[in-house]
Amino acid sequence: MSVEQLLADEQAIIEATLKRVLQTQDARPRRLHEAIAYAVFAGGKRIRPILARLACRAAAGDPDEITEAACGLELIHTYSLVHDDLPAMDDDVLRRGCPTVHIEFDEATAILVGDALLTEGLLVLARYPAGDSWAARRAGAVALVAEAVSSRGMVGGQAEDIENTGRTGNDRPDLERRLERIHRHKTGCLLQASVELGALLAHAEPRTQTSFADFGRDLGLAFQIADDILDATSSSSKLGKSVGKDARAGKLTYVTLFGLEAAQKRLDVLEKHLADRARSIEGPDGELAAVAHFICRRTS
Amino acid sequence: MSVEQLLADEQAIIEATLKRVLQTQDARPRRLHEAIAYAVFAGGKRIRPILARLACRAAAGDPDEITEAACGLELIHTYSLVHDDLPAMDDDVLRRGCPTVHIEFDEATAILVGDALLTEGLLVLARYPAGDSWAARRAGAVALVAEAVSSRGMVGGQAEDIENTGRTGNDRPDLERRLERIHRHKTGCLLQASVELGALLAHAEPRTQTSFADFGRDLGLAFQIADDILDATSSSSKLGKSVGKDARAGKLTYVTLFGLEAAQKRLDVLEKHLADRARSIEGPDGELAAVAHFICRRTS
Repeated sequence: MSVEQLLADEQAIIEATLKRVLQTQDARPRRLHEAIAYAVFAGGKRIRPILARLACRAAAGDPDEITEAACGLELIHTYSLVHDDLPAMDDDVLRRGCPTVHIEFDEATAILVGDALLTEGLLVLARYPAGDSWAARRAGAVALVAEAVSSRGMVGGQAEDIENTGRTGNDRPDLERRLERIHRHKTGCLLQASVELGALLAHAEPRTQTSFADFGRDLGLAFQIADDILDATSSSSKLGKSVGKDARAGKLTYVTLFGLEAAQKRLDVLEKHLADRARSIEGPDGELAAVAHFICRRTS
Repeated sequence: MSVEQLLADEQAIIEATLKRVLQTQDARPRRLHEAIAYAVFAGGKRIRPILARLACRAAAGDPDEITEAACGLELIHTYSLVHDDLPAMDDDVLRRGCPTVHIEFDEATAILVGDALLTEGLLVLARYPAGDSWAARRAGAVALVAEAVSSRGMVGGQAEDIENTGRTGNDRPDLERRLERIHRHKTGCLLQASVELGALLAHAEPRTQTSFADFGRDLGLAFQIADDILDATSSSSKLGKSVGKDARAGKLTYVTLFGLEAAQKRLDVLEKHLADRARSIEGPDGELAAVAHFICRRTS
């Protein structure tokens, strides 16, 4: 099976499960739940829950047992997008090809949609998989993912990103350290936790879990460098979001700091590294390696 | 011991535990963690964690075992205040006698502080009390509290409150239903969950847990009616937050809808009801009854 087919099949499973888990149709208040559905079902590659399912299988677990929990990751990722797009943050009007939530609805609703999705994401992790034998892993899953998106993780990365916007200087080593820290936190932490969650729920030993986490950390960095390259080279019709914005906003990115060529070179090195890491956790020619390759080469 | 002394002793325990659990001093990014500490340590009555500890004792548990978990409730409550105060929401400049977070820092920071505190609150519930024997209850605690503050609970109440602001009409039964629903959700759900959490962590039977939840639900309603009365009758120097604002903003409150006298009468009835409920779960002259009485009669 091609990686494109694998991802399409996985996406279909995630979409169906998200619909079942969220149940926004008849929920009150109406407008809030409409906005939640608007944010979640506007497309999206569903990379994080897919990574969790594939990691679960690679760690000898049954991915179908953890699909609901994996969807918690997507709800949390969606919350971060909705809040990052707010006028006081990145002030973005386009996301996944559609008006952002605060444009389509209003700012108060967008804040509440983000709050609700963060809550729901952790709630789903606390509830699924159901059954007493999973209880300890459910508590562990909430702790793992919440730590990843905490003020020491994703939220901290977003805060540092905003602080550093428009900030320049000649101290390149310092800028590089900042850039790496922002990316590791803002994007890396949740991607790392997604891979680690699959291993945790598969009941992998602590040492194995760490190997999955290491793979996830590098994958997160690769994902962000690829994102920076796309922001500088692609069109908004292809990406479904505003592009070239990072440079205009004076944001620290791998492309604005190193230039396109050096960023691409760095991504190439990381890709080889990821292939090695994947081989060590899933054997040769595994699904995680294929997805890592796909992420490094993606064009949208 | 007087109820004032009980509450002061309990508050001291909560303050010390919040400081230990949060650890914001050396955490990075600096500014974000300064803002988190600013929001959490600006005072506050700590009613929710105190209720959880007292309910735990009433349900034959050891409150000292659940203090960290109880603090998770306060972090979540603080998140809701920080976000509710945002310009796009209630647009408030004063809270607990100090400038609100978006005034003292900025709007982006206030959004991220709220996000971080919600995350941290549920993280604390997933981690504490530590130990394998608590794992199932930790997962249950996250699910209980997350459901209470979800789009079907607290966040839904805030959304409906905003939607109904400035809305009038002659259909009184409809307005009354809305008002009750808003209050039950916006304030009631988390207060109810706080009481229920104490019983859950004390390993109370499901039926006992329900009795605690019922008491908590009525207490939440009483708390909100008392709040509405204070907003209409007290001064901002006494309350440490803007007052008379509800009426000016055209908000639905028990006082704007029923008038001061009828609101007070309703609170009196509820207070008697709460005394009965408290007696049934903790016996005569218990701490929960004393705190319920205090909440109904509070002047700040």
